Amino acid sequence: MKPADFPEEVHRLIGQLKELPGIGPRSAERICLWLLQNPHAYTEALVDSLTVAKSRIIACPVCGFFATATHCVLCDDPKRDDSQICVVEQATDVMPLERSGVFRGRYHCLGGKLSPLDGVEPDDLRIHGLLKRIDQAKEPVEVILALGSDVEGEATANYLADLLRHRQCTISRIAQGLPVGGGLGQADPLTLMRAMQGRRSW
Amino acid sequence: MKPADFPEEVHRLIGQLKELPGIGPRSAERICLWLLQNPHAYTEALVDSLTVAKSRIIACPVCGFFATATHCVLCDDPKRDDSQICVVEQATDVMPLERSGVFRGRYHCLGGKLSPLDGVEPDDLRIHGLLKRIDQAKEPVEVILALGSDVEGEATANYLADLLRHRQCTISRIAQGLPVGGGLGQADPLTLMRAMQGRRSW
Repeated sequence: MKPADFPEEVHRLIGQLKELPGIGPRSAERICLWLLQNPHAYTEALVDSLTVAKSRIIACPVCGFFATATHCVLCDDPKRDDSQICVVEQATDVMPLERSGVFRGRYHCLGGKLSPLDGVEPDDLRIHGLLKRIDQAKEPVEVILALGSDVEGEATANYLADLLRHRQCTISRIAQGLPVGGGLGQADPLTLMRAMQGRRSW
Repeated sequence: MKPADFPEEVHRLIGQLKELPGIGPRSAERICLWLLQNPHAYTEALVDSLTVAKSRIIACPVCGFFATATHCVLCDDPKRDDSQICVVEQATDVMPLERSGVFRGRYHCLGGKLSPLDGVEPDDLRIHGLLKRIDQAKEPVEVILALGSDVEGEATANYLADLLRHRQCTISRIAQGLPVGGGLGQADPLTLMRAMQGRRSW
């Protein structure tokens, strides 16, 4: 006797859900069951949101942030400081910085980080666009590298710093150190090393 | 200056994704970014799978497993043993049992477990249908309660056992004890208690 199995339609949906980032086989089953048990209205709303977002949202051709065909809130805002460009990996990295309220300049989303093992080369990132923005700026800009502190983030920062060295800009990098509220006991040795190296006089 | 924000369409999609079980704000952002960066084909396939599954798949009116309007693999299979009904919480609980190949009888999916705090009362579960199946069976059946061993699972098992006591059936419950491959060191005290209580002579 063959063991019982989900209907084909259920398998297909679970298979699709499993491809989403961070969704494993169990989560996919759970989400599928939940969707099938919930009223049609939710699924319809989700399908509609997916279709609308996918058809209307593009990466801004200048900065790479989420934009509609005619409109990018970051590039359109006349009040932002043109003399600073904050380079981040992903469009989603803009939000934590914006929420902190600490930065009022422009952004540049690379769309990833250098990772030769995963086949991500400089040409796969929005680096050419960044150089163009710097070269075409009316005044010298400060380029703030706000990349992750993992190996790929470091490599990307180093690569960009090399490219930018002889251009009309200053380069800085966000600080690494102890997170606020964290004790020395919880910090890993590398973080402590960076915190020591980055110490400031009182 | 107002901090920059996602376009409205992105917010709406993230909001929809956040409602899925096990998906928090960060996962929703990550999935949304992933979907927007991936080719249209994937989103279209997902939308199609969602629509098809939601329109075609129903809960089988007899056993509660995933079924199409005309067809439930569990109820339709003539080779299954009618003298055993395995009661599980959710339709998805059928799959691990089927994969293990240990059970060849019929199933009954309750659609949840009793949980007065969450407002799940006996009438919200497929209990009436279970009683009807037992009462209409040609021969006395064995009802195997394969419910979870959490508080709600226990309560549901006790409730069902009370209801079934004077009906034409025998009642059993799947064993609780040490998981295979697990040492005594990893087991919690309650599991050890159940393992001791359920000990069998060699």
